[in-house]
Amino acid sequence: MAGTVEDSGKTAPSSPAWLHGADLGLRVLLFAVSLSGLVVLVTAKQTEIVPLQRLASAHVRESIVVTYVSPLLRYLLVALCMTSLYSLLTAASSVKSMSSSASCAKGIFVLILLDVVYAGIMASATGTAGAVAWVGLKGNSHTRWNKICNIYDKFCRHIGSATCLGLVASIILVLLVVLNAYSLYRRSR
Amino acid sequence: MAGTVEDSGKTAPSSPAWLHGADLGLRVLLFAVSLSGLVVLVTAKQTEIVPLQRLASAHVRESIVVTYVSPLLRYLLVALCMTSLYSLLTAASSVKSMSSSASCAKGIFVLILLDVVYAGIMASATGTAGAVAWVGLKGNSHTRWNKICNIYDKFCRHIGSATCLGLVASIILVLLVVLNAYSLYRRSR
Repeated sequence: MAGTVEDSGKTAPSSPAWLHGADLGLRVLLFAVSLSGLVVLVTAKQTEIVPLQRLASAHVRESIVVTYVSPLLRYLLVALCMTSLYSLLTAASSVKSMSSSASCAKGIFVLILLDVVYAGIMASATGTAGAVAWVGLKGNSHTRWNKICNIYDKFCRHIGSATCLGLVASIILVLLVVLNAYSLYRRSR
Repeated sequence: MAGTVEDSGKTAPSSPAWLHGADLGLRVLLFAVSLSGLVVLVTAKQTEIVPLQRLASAHVRESIVVTYVSPLLRYLLVALCMTSLYSLLTAASSVKSMSSSASCAKGIFVLILLDVVYAGIMASATGTAGAVAWVGLKGNSHTRWNKICNIYDKFCRHIGSATCLGLVASIILVLLVVLNAYSLYRRSR
């Protein structure tokens, strides 16, 4: 990805081309990952015929979708939505700063600030959805929360995949913070 | 906090005293918060007489403690333990760099790297424990996970408080990243 970037050798104190390229590449990857996570999460819907709790002989047709399972999954939904929008905007600003080849230190500092906040939001949303997925998969005998993934297998696969994609998005955001911090560190030497 | 710090005016390119002081203050605060969270979480134990699920007339004495409720709460336990240890070590290194009044840019960069990783871990652990606390408090009719906080009220208060302290620890870590990024930004101007 860094190879496609023009060499901005004219501005000596500016960041090198590979740093710009890596930043843009990671932001594009972040957009792809968060959008995939969003699509996977939105399409998590399953209808099953399940037995009623008290009457083992009576059965009922029940649908399960993310939006009413719990606000916990909606939190991941909102976080992924925000992150994909944010990654798109920052990728655009990254392209713009690359073409003008004059990315200022202030801009990098602001990006670190925003990236670390988004990394925190994304990480906590991943933790939240991961907890729901874990309880759904394993259940908990002490609190009598039954596993639901033996019934809603497709639904659980979607939640699990969205959680994994959320984790990847969090890691990318952490990498972006480190990359931009390195960019500032290079300038400060 | 910054007032207690000696003026390091001799080294012009170094960070100003207030940045050093704020860094040390936040690390001491992080230690206090994460240790409190750890103590609150470890002491979350409650024994209650609860009815058996199938036989409403039969009752059983049940204890609930963090370590066997689920690996999800143990994750917060480990994260708080790691963070309190980390904050202690970095506070010591912060004092050391303050006394030598020669904090190098490389050291600040390494601190940003570690802080952002810990912020991610702490945020996800907070999200995980928050999800458990939320399900315990509100329950979920769709997945038939019953609320447990009406029975284990003290236990839930402990989990909730530990989650809040985890959230504060995450915010402090994000602030530390921003502070050190600002320190690098000042040097790069």
